[in-house]
Amino acid sequence: MARVFGFKGCRKIRGSQIRNLLETKDVFLFDCDGVIWDGEHAITGAPKVVNSLIRHGKNVFFVTNNSTKPRENYVHKFYRLGFTDVMQEQIFSSSYCSALYLKDVAKVNGHVFAIGCEGLLKELRDAGVALTDEMDSPEDTIAKCALTPGVKAVIVGHDDTFTFLKLAKASCYLKDPNCLFLATDSDPWHPLRDGRILPGSGSLAAALEVASGRKATVIGKPSRFMFECISSQFRGVDPAQCLMVGDRLETDMLFGANCGLDTMLTLTGVSQMKEAQDYKDSQHSTNQSFVPDYVVDTIADFLPAFEDMD
Amino acid sequence: MARVFGFKGCRKIRGSQIRNLLETKDVFLFDCDGVIWDGEHAITGAPKVVNSLIRHGKNVFFVTNNSTKPRENYVHKFYRLGFTDVMQEQIFSSSYCSALYLKDVAKVNGHVFAIGCEGLLKELRDAGVALTDEMDSPEDTIAKCALTPGVKAVIVGHDDTFTFLKLAKASCYLKDPNCLFLATDSDPWHPLRDGRILPGSGSLAAALEVASGRKATVIGKPSRFMFECISSQFRGVDPAQCLMVGDRLETDMLFGANCGLDTMLTLTGVSQMKEAQDYKDSQHSTNQSFVPDYVVDTIADFLPAFEDMD
Repeated sequence: MARVFGFKGCRKIRGSQIRNLLETKDVFLFDCDGVIWDGEHAITGAPKVVNSLIRHGKNVFFVTNNSTKPRENYVHKFYRLGFTDVMQEQIFSSSYCSALYLKDVAKVNGHVFAIGCEGLLKELRDAGVALTDEMDSPEDTIAKCALTPGVKAVIVGHDDTFTFLKLAKASCYLKDPNCLFLATDSDPWHPLRDGRILPGSGSLAAALEVASGRKATVIGKPSRFMFECISSQFRGVDPAQCLMVGDRLETDMLFGANCGLDTMLTLTGVSQMKEAQDYKDSQHSTNQSFVPDYVVDTIADFLPAFEDMD
Repeated sequence: MARVFGFKGCRKIRGSQIRNLLETKDVFLFDCDGVIWDGEHAITGAPKVVNSLIRHGKNVFFVTNNSTKPRENYVHKFYRLGFTDVMQEQIFSSSYCSALYLKDVAKVNGHVFAIGCEGLLKELRDAGVALTDEMDSPEDTIAKCALTPGVKAVIVGHDDTFTFLKLAKASCYLKDPNCLFLATDSDPWHPLRDGRILPGSGSLAAALEVASGRKATVIGKPSRFMFECISSQFRGVDPAQCLMVGDRLETDMLFGANCGLDTMLTLTGVSQMKEAQDYKDSQHSTNQSFVPDYVVDTIADFLPAFEDMD
């Protein structure tokens, strides 16, 4: 099938097509939620796929916008769900990459106000970032609460203890134009069981963008920064040799497009084939960045390829 | 000074110019915060201006996006600060107008989930709107909390007890495309003393828009709806006879432009002359809607006109 330059294929592949693709790629980047697991359940066959790729000498990385857990918890989760060959160095979470950004790129020297879960706070502390430590009481209001002087950055990630006071304090810190404004990611929401919705970091960041009149620098996908973190730690990673596998067109596929990687949509998560096809058929050329090169029902479709390769 | 058609004047007026304007207008719409008062302090001279307009037979209305207080509290505040001639019928708050919208326009028949202060909740209850009454405990999470079935509308206003759980519940209700999504107003933030920032309803609405993937219908300024509420209750209000006086270009001046009213910026609040001039000088024709027709330092500049008029 001829590939038209500038337009992604959105091509459903199987069998020998998958084997050929696996043979041409050296580096596999996987999103986690909806790709290799769904909450506390591994996607059927996914552990065997990941372990097989590693044993066949492929470089495998995990790029997740989920900022709720520190990487060491991810290592335990990988092991618990049967991904027995994954090591901490392969895991690039938006929390970890945010810490890298603050230390190595922004070289922040001073206090950081963080809105987020323990996963974000621990990665920041582990990287040596100094967090503000005002002790707010439930009676505190923004008109009369403690504010740390000279805060150098505000970072917002997923936070299920988000409150109006946190939003207001962050808005006050961001009045200083020298105070950096970061978001771990811009994910709008996440699906829960029973059709419920979990608002994402992108939702909290939007509130803060409006209240502060500023735009956040986004660390996670679709920003290129996570790929830059991988490239700086693993020399010789060539975009042409990479395949980005994800379940969300607006984050994973766009991330791949932004980094010059071939992309694969797996249909075990948020986005479905019709949405990909709609983007492909769209008249807006910018929508082409959301279109995957390849589509599989599940990464378990990789399994027969290994039988051939063995 | 010749007035170029299609372009607002941004004209600083004083003395006899103000007297002439007051004589040609029958209806005066005032924003409150930053125009007639600043927190618990009346703008110097403002009570005398408002009382004089009323005594000279002018129709005076107050259009405020502040949704935190029910109208009866506003009556007390007006009286307390010296605006002794103001009655409840003259006050159009975003809370009151939201209740009118739900009852008279949307004709909502079922439960409404409200994110807001007591001012909003009371106006809704007074209008006969049925509010959800789930009792959340601090341990509740969105994965396992009570959700009222068949919620017909979600409304978001200023709420200093805003939490992640409220945001998440609202996002779940809005999955039903038949569930209306309203915002009392889209104000991004409000100034506090000491340079602190109070995030506005627009900030909370933005979070919910991202988490739900939907756009809120905005009740307050700059939407036309508040003016429609006035017109429906006071027949014969002619836009050509109205002057809208406010302190914020992006809400008050745009509201006036949207409703076909002449507009006046007073410099006792958020927006300053330079911002108005920048909009006027902008190449984007849409920015002309933010430009006031007239500018005064304070509405106390009206006072000499009454001396002439007496």
